This record gives sequence, C-alpha cells and structure tokens, in this order.
Amino acid sequence: MAPIQNARVLFNSVPSGESAARGPNVLGSPSRRADYPAAPLNGGFLLKVLVLSVDPYFRGKIRAPEKKSYSPGFIIGAPLEGYGIGVVLRSETPGVEVGKYIYGLTIPHQEYLMLPELSDLEIIEKHPGLPWPAYVGAAGMPGKTAYVGWKEYSDAKPVTIPARTPLSALISGAVGSVVIQLAKQAGMKVIASAGSEEKVQYMKDLGADVAFNYKTTDTRAVLAKEGPINVYWDNVGSEVLEAALDFAAIHGRFSKCGMISGYNTGHQGIKNLKLVYGRSLNIHGILVFRLQAKYDKEFYATIPAKLASGEIKYAEEITRGQNKVGDDILAVRKGENKAKAVIVVAEE
Amino acid sequence: MAPIQNARVLFNSVPSGESAARGPNVLGSPSRRADYPAAPLNGGFLLKVLVLSVDPYFRGKIRAPEKKSYSPGFIIGAPLEGYGIGVVLRSETPGVEVGKYIYGLTIPHQEYLMLPELSDLEIIEKHPGLPWPAYVGAAGMPGKTAYVGWKEYSDAKPVTIPARTPLSALISGAVGSVVIQLAKQAGMKVIASAGSEEKVQYMKDLGADVAFNYKTTDTRAVLAKEGPINVYWDNVGSEVLEAALDFAAIHGRFSKCGMISGYNTGHQGIKNLKLVYGRSLNIHGILVFRLQAKYDKEFYATIPAKLASGEIKYAEEITRGQNKVGDDILAVRKGENKAKAVIVVAEE
Repeated sequence: MAPIQNARVLFNSVPSGESAARGPNVLGSPSRRADYPAAPLNGGFLLKVLVLSVDPYFRGKIRAPEKKSYSPGFIIGAPLEGYGIGVVLRSETPGVEVGKYIYGLTIPHQEYLMLPELSDLEIIEKHPGLPWPAYVGAAGMPGKTAYVGWKEYSDAKPVTIPARTPLSALISGAVGSVVIQLAKQAGMKVIASAGSEEKVQYMKDLGADVAFNYKTTDTRAVLAKEGPINVYWDNVGSEVLEAALDFAAIHGRFSKCGMISGYNTGHQGIKNLKLVYGRSLNIHGILVFRLQAKYDKEFYATIPAKLASGEIKYAEEITRGQNKVGDDILAVRKGENKAKAVIVVAEE
Repeated sequence: MAPIQNARVLFNSVPSGESAARGPNVLGSPSRRADYPAAPLNGGFLLKVLVLSVDPYFRGKIRAPEKKSYSPGFIIGAPLEGYGIGVVLRSETPGVEVGKYIYGLTIPHQEYLMLPELSDLEIIEKHPGLPWPAYVGAAGMPGKTAYVGWKEYSDAKPVTIPARTPLSALISGAVGSVVIQLAKQAGMKVIASAGSEEKVQYMKDLGADVAFNYKTTDTRAVLAKEGPINVYWDNVGSEVLEAALDFAAIHGRFSKCGMISGYNTGHQGIKNLKLVYGRSLNIHGILVFRLQAKYDKEFYATIPAKLASGEIKYAEEITRGQNKVGDDILAVRKGENKAKAVIVVAEE
C-alpha cells in the first residue's frame, strides 16, 4: 500500500503586538506524505485522529517560547496540539488494541499519528447515544472543568436557604453551560451573563433564572437587584470580577476558571480585593487536569448518559476538516462562536 | 460618694484627604463627670475599663458615616470603640457578678461604662501567669486571628515535604508574630518580611528561617531564592501580594487578613490574578469574628498557657492612660509601633 497524505496544522510564528486578530495569521496547513500503512511501529501504535478541540486556552499557547505559563506554548514549526480523540489503526503496544479509542490533551492537529506509547493519553469508552465530538466538549475537558470545579468548591446549597444565589459569568459557554445546569440541579438560583443575545437566550433555555448581555446591560445593576452572590464562577476577570466582588455575600465562594477578558488586552488590576477578607470570601483556582483524577470515574459514570438522554443539554459548533482551524481559534477568542468549537477531522 | 471623672476619647471629625497623618487630628480627650458609684443600674452593670487595644483596623473605622465596610465606622462625637477588658464594679445583671472580667470588641474608650446587659461582650478568665494586656494581643483578637486562620486554612505540612514553604508578610507583627510561631511548630520553613530592621530581628528571634526588610530588600529576589511559597499570610496586599502570586507553588494557600498598604493610598489593582487558576491557588479571606466561635474553646485552652510559659513569644508596646491614643493610632498606621499597641487605662 502506498504512502498517504497527512494534513497538519502548524504553528508558524508568534504574532507581533496584542491584536485580537491572532489565529489565521499564525497558522498554516501543509500536509506531508508518510508510509503509515506500512511503516514499522517499533512497539508503538498508529492513531487516526477523529476529533480535535479548539478552546479558549489556545490563546495562551500562542506565545513566544520564552514566556512561561501553566500550559506549554505551541512550538513554532510543529503542529498545534490540544484535546482530541483518535482510533487505533495499527498497534504493537500491549493494551492498546486496534479499534480502541484514545483521548487526551496532547493530540497534534494532524490526520495520522505514530506514537511510541500511550504516555499521558488514555483509552476512552463511548456511550452509545453520544457522538465523539461531545467527548471534547460537555463530556470532555470543558464539561469536566465545570464538574470538578463545581463538586470540589461550590458548596452548593438550595435556594431555599435565604440569599443563596450563584452568578455564572460565561463567555465560551462550553464550561459555563454545564455549570448553569449543575447549579440548577442543586436547587440554586442562577444569574448568567454572556456577550450576545443568542447566548443569553441559550442560557435561559438551559434554566438560568436571570440571563443578560453584559455588553448592553449594566452588570452591577443586575446584581444589585438579583444578588448577593454566594457562588461565582469566573471565566472573565476584570470589571465583571470586580462587580462580583462588590456584590458577594459573606462567605461567598469564587471559582476562578479563566480571565478571558485579559488574554488580548492585558490583565486589568483588580482593585477591590480587600472584600476577600471583609466578606470572608474563598477563591479557588481551577485547572481541570489537577483535579480530574479525583472525579474522572464518577464523571464518566454519570455525565455522558445525562448528555445522551438530554437531562444535561449541550451545544457544539462543528467544523469538518482542518482547513479553517485558524478561523475557529479566532472565533473562540472573539466570542463569536455560538457553541463549543469542535473540528471533525475524519469520520470513523 | 461624690460623682467621679470619666475620661473619654472621642471621634471628633472625619479627616479630609488621604493623608497618613490621621489619628491625632481627629481625636479629643474630654472627660465628664458622672455619679457612677451611686447611679441606678436598672438591671445592668458598671464596668471599670482596664485595657484597650489599638489595632490597624481602626484606620477603616475613621471614615465618613455613609461609607460602608465590614466594621461600622466610628461615630462622630462618640467615644472610639474597640477590643478591651474591664472589671465589673457593680452589677444587677444575672451571671455578671462583681469582680468578673469582661472582654469584647465594643468597649468604648472611656474609664467607666454603664451597660444594660452583656450583649456581645463575654466573661473572660485570666491565666494566672499572663497579664491583662496580653488578652487584647497574642491572647486576644490578633492571636485569635492568627490561630483561627492558620487552623482553618493553612493545611500546614512539614518542610520535609519538598518545597513546602510559607511566606509570612508582616507589618503590625501582632498577628504575624503568632503565625510565624504556629508555622514553625508545624515544621515549616518560614520566610518573613517587615518594614524595619528591629522587626526583622524580632522575626528571626521568633524562629523565622528567612527575615528581611521589604523596604530595603527586593521581595522578588528573596522569593526567587527561597520560594516557592506554599502558604502565604497576607496582611499587606499590593506589590507584596503580586510578588507572592508570582512565586506561589501549585495548590498554594493564601490567607488574606488585611491590605494595610492600601488603607491610606487606595488599593492598587492586582494584575496577576490569572495565576490563581494557572497555579490552582486557594485564597481565603479571614475575619476573626466569623471564625472564632469554632475555635474559641481550644484557643483559650492552649494559647494563654503557651504565652505564659514562653513557648509562644509575644511583644507589646504599652501606653499608660488615654492621653496619647491618637499618637498610638498614627504609629500603628505608619508601622512605627514596635509591637502590639495596648493602652492600660487602669490597674485593677
């Protein structure tokens, strides 16, 4: 059998300046030929990539190599890398049989992949009622982020306890839309904000008691009326975080999951942190990969079935093929994507 | 018996501007006569004030009445109010017998006090080896703040666990000096900073492994060498907090107990809060009065004896009489006091 094409998406260069127009201008999509059907495996395995995820944290990886952060930067000249799912086509690795599905954070943006060992990737089972794209969204990292953060830190109490009110401030929706539903299932009142009318409507559809467009509505006015806030899920930072601090209840619990507002413009200083002790607040930083070992078993035992049955709703924006990854990254960065961005590289 | 003098210290006016020279210019010290030996008690009791405390939080109470904060502002024309201890001279209140000692947050700055009921004050027992001034310091609110915050949130681990290092950033010393000793007793390495060479030496005497003057030494250079920080006790805020965030270990625990640096100059925005999720940090706001009910019993059962025996060290700067309360407040504000400021109003 002849060598086949292996389309890839590379990180070409670090953009200069802090323009929002990152994404397309740093990415290329060259393919190269390789003899995957016949090349020696040397104890490893060959993966055919099915699904790749584009997430807000990509922005942090598009940076100069000398800048440090919690997630390693993309490597210039190498493929982008992120959450993805593939199927094993050939294998000499014990336990990694042909036909198994592999999930993990370090799947390169290319069609085929030769790997020497499983390393930090894992074998994943699919719920029969749930398609693979969901496994990088509500049944993957964003859903897990919501689940582990909520379980570990929210100390959720029903709204029958007076003034027990969460605010969920959402941009991408992929994490926040699960948080809204977990909060509602815990009996809480949910205040949610988003950057477009369409997303506001979606949050209402998910059960948010109050949903508003923070670009056209004054967050402080909403919180003055609907607060105080007992649980705050922060993907945003900056003015929204300051407003949430100002309307926090005593012993409020803040989960910090991102500060998307600062990714392009630099992080604004938060001036009212004295409220952290004034109101005895607890702030918890959440990175899913540091908590998921504790929760993975119960997450996979419960959430995919609830997604398949519709008990928990989710939404995706699927792009077929790798030709528009740059556009997808840009849309996620600008908040223009309507739902979790997923690239379907190949059907099974 | 004739009426007696009752010297008081009143809050005269809100100072204009944000000058550091608050304190003396807002306080007066008029006394008035009252017939305390014979006046009807109407079911209440007469307290002779022995000890009053001057604490950094006073700054927050010297404000315009319309400004809200966690602690009510001083009332113009009324005496200052704070932690203090008194002895009951006359009583018609059941359970509040003559000769009992009363402790609490709402003792006015005056020599004698008629009270209708115990309200939020409490009866306190004295350890025979410990003088009363200690009970508004290391055996009082500042010591309790250190104790409850440390017990509830530090998750202290011995230094034998690699890189398990606390930083204690101290200004007033009253809280921080207890934190240093609790951290050392937990087996941790302690990095401490203060604003004078004298305080630096005192921290070393208390057992700090590293102590430095943050006015003359670059905090970041110290932390780069001695960090990362697993536990951070923050009384300071601003640049010191930003530095601590930059050198925080993964899963670091930050206790926020004050932001003294911003009391006069306004609170500087904290720009690197993205590290809260990047490093999975936990930040806990501490106000002693919201935690002490949980810990009061064990605190009084253990700490006064350790203070009396010298197992835990403490220091005080005692002023006799109420004539220099304004100077004391100013010294605490400027960090010029050498140790916990206590006013001895009367001997027993």
